[in-house]
Amino acid sequence: MASGGPSGEDSLIARYFKPLATDPGAFSLGDDAAVLKALGEDVVVTADAIVEGVHFLSEDPPDTIARKALRVNLSDLAAKGAAPAGFVLTLALRGAEDAWLSAFAAGLGDDAKSYVCPLLGGDTVSTPGPVTVSITAFGRVPAGSMVHRSGARVGDRVMVTGTIGDAALGLDVLKGGTVAAALAGDPAARELLVSRYRVPQPRNALAHAVREHANAAMDVSDGLAGDLTKLCAASGISANIDTPLIPASSAAAGLVARGVVAIDTLISGGDDYELLCAVPQAHCAAFEAEARRAEVALTSIGTIIEGNGPPRFLSAEGAELALRRLSYSHF
Amino acid sequence: MASGGPSGEDSLIARYFKPLATDPGAFSLGDDAAVLKALGEDVVVTADAIVEGVHFLSEDPPDTIARKALRVNLSDLAAKGAAPAGFVLTLALRGAEDAWLSAFAAGLGDDAKSYVCPLLGGDTVSTPGPVTVSITAFGRVPAGSMVHRSGARVGDRVMVTGTIGDAALGLDVLKGGTVAAALAGDPAARELLVSRYRVPQPRNALAHAVREHANAAMDVSDGLAGDLTKLCAASGISANIDTPLIPASSAAAGLVARGVVAIDTLISGGDDYELLCAVPQAHCAAFEAEARRAEVALTSIGTIIEGNGPPRFLSAEGAELALRRLSYSHF
Repeated sequence: MASGGPSGEDSLIARYFKPLATDPGAFSLGDDAAVLKALGEDVVVTADAIVEGVHFLSEDPPDTIARKALRVNLSDLAAKGAAPAGFVLTLALRGAEDAWLSAFAAGLGDDAKSYVCPLLGGDTVSTPGPVTVSITAFGRVPAGSMVHRSGARVGDRVMVTGTIGDAALGLDVLKGGTVAAALAGDPAARELLVSRYRVPQPRNALAHAVREHANAAMDVSDGLAGDLTKLCAASGISANIDTPLIPASSAAAGLVARGVVAIDTLISGGDDYELLCAVPQAHCAAFEAEARRAEVALTSIGTIIEGNGPPRFLSAEGAELALRRLSYSHF
Repeated sequence: MASGGPSGEDSLIARYFKPLATDPGAFSLGDDAAVLKALGEDVVVTADAIVEGVHFLSEDPPDTIARKALRVNLSDLAAKGAAPAGFVLTLALRGAEDAWLSAFAAGLGDDAKSYVCPLLGGDTVSTPGPVTVSITAFGRVPAGSMVHRSGARVGDRVMVTGTIGDAALGLDVLKGGTVAAALAGDPAARELLVSRYRVPQPRNALAHAVREHANAAMDVSDGLAGDLTKLCAASGISANIDTPLIPASSAAAGLVARGVVAIDTLISGGDDYELLCAVPQAHCAAFEAEARRAEVALTSIGTIIEGNGPPRFLSAEGAELALRRLSYSHF
């Protein structure tokens, strides 16, 4: 990013984004590049883009769009056990509308501050198409200690944070689908589900505990079933999941109980941004204690077993559920 | 990026991009994040996005789109004196067309190899809008040695690599403008200008020399006049430029001589991706010698002077040119 020049692009950057560039390595966005000090640690790098009409809706408040763009990346850092170190932003916009940009920058700055993840640089370009927000985020871990998808071992407990499936239901509410109709008389439930879609709650407070206690971890972004399948494949193992143990919000559980949605919708819906971890039995109590201290819900939902097939989702009676789809895919 | 899962997105990544992820820190794109080893050096970070219809044309060959996306970032690394260390890619596509993607990945892989800048990770998303390629690239410099925009000193020579203005003329050729008409009988000149627009030649071979010899540097991406204005502002100085010394290709010089375009078009056109450096007199000969060894043209075009106004572009007679605009701006 560049400031100080005469163009509209530069004054946009100076006005909205320079205040967010609090790290000395960002050079106040007045240079062509930033410097990230590694401090003898490994730099963990992750990149996620969100697109208007695909990952967020045109009508979404701009501050929530900014928060979601940053938080989906923060969630990856948390899953890898990394402490946030900063991020770069490329923003493709149709125009430079003051109200939209100032709300966007306010939300972004607020999160950058709370998660101690300063803006280091980026690029702002015009597009005739949908707003596209692409963020590359950096974290630090002690050398060699990034937590991988591939470390799960037979006997590990499968654990997830928070609740699963709310965001997919929230998207249905925003699109006026069956969930919206079923919750017509319950604005509080609608609002909870929508806020889970718009503003994920990345579990960075647990990053250190993930590094200390998990053999493998990833964040749940494309649906629990599909993402657990990926973790199993990367680790060369399989898993048995006690489906009734999968944590659901009371709103989501109510919709399943009433038959409005099937359990599939929860476990194959995307946008949860919760942590999925394989934790050795001997570490479960300590991991749970750290989660309590961080006030993050943590639930044990199954066990890693031998095998190379996809994980099995079992009912209370031990029958295997047939899932129609595992996860969200763009193509 | 994730591979190994069952989705179309994952198989797309596995097929086209996994072969490019040659660095061990990329984990074959099979995890949620990459690891960049800093090796005791500073990590230099730069991000640039290119958008279909804005930075490249729909009809451009896909391999050139990929090369341009990476090279505009490599050019920033070169200007900062950094050796390439890798990059992450976020790619927003309308669909997954095999022919387009395999040509895109081939061009990207070829450049990643030649510039020793491996793919570390990224994200592939669908968009209803224009193809958008966003790259964040990483380089390494010895701690504290990144070259800034802000170090130019009074008396430094202003030097540029290559030739200026070709890419802007190449864009006019592709759009069928006045340049296209004037060069109707000269396919070689048309092709040269178009290739300068589509495939920049970043000057990474000079990165070490920039670090050794330049007080300040940046790459020329938005037009020489505007970018030099930014360098002057960042350094708190001004500059006198001998306009006739500005290096032009014979195609560009011919168009100016025939009155088809004014010199303004060359020095305010974007997409040059040449290096602009402020070099102390005592270092000029050594810098020029290194450029000769690297077979990169390097031209001294003016002098840094005291002042805080924009640089003055002087004619052979010493008269100041009035520029209608300094550079390209998105907003």
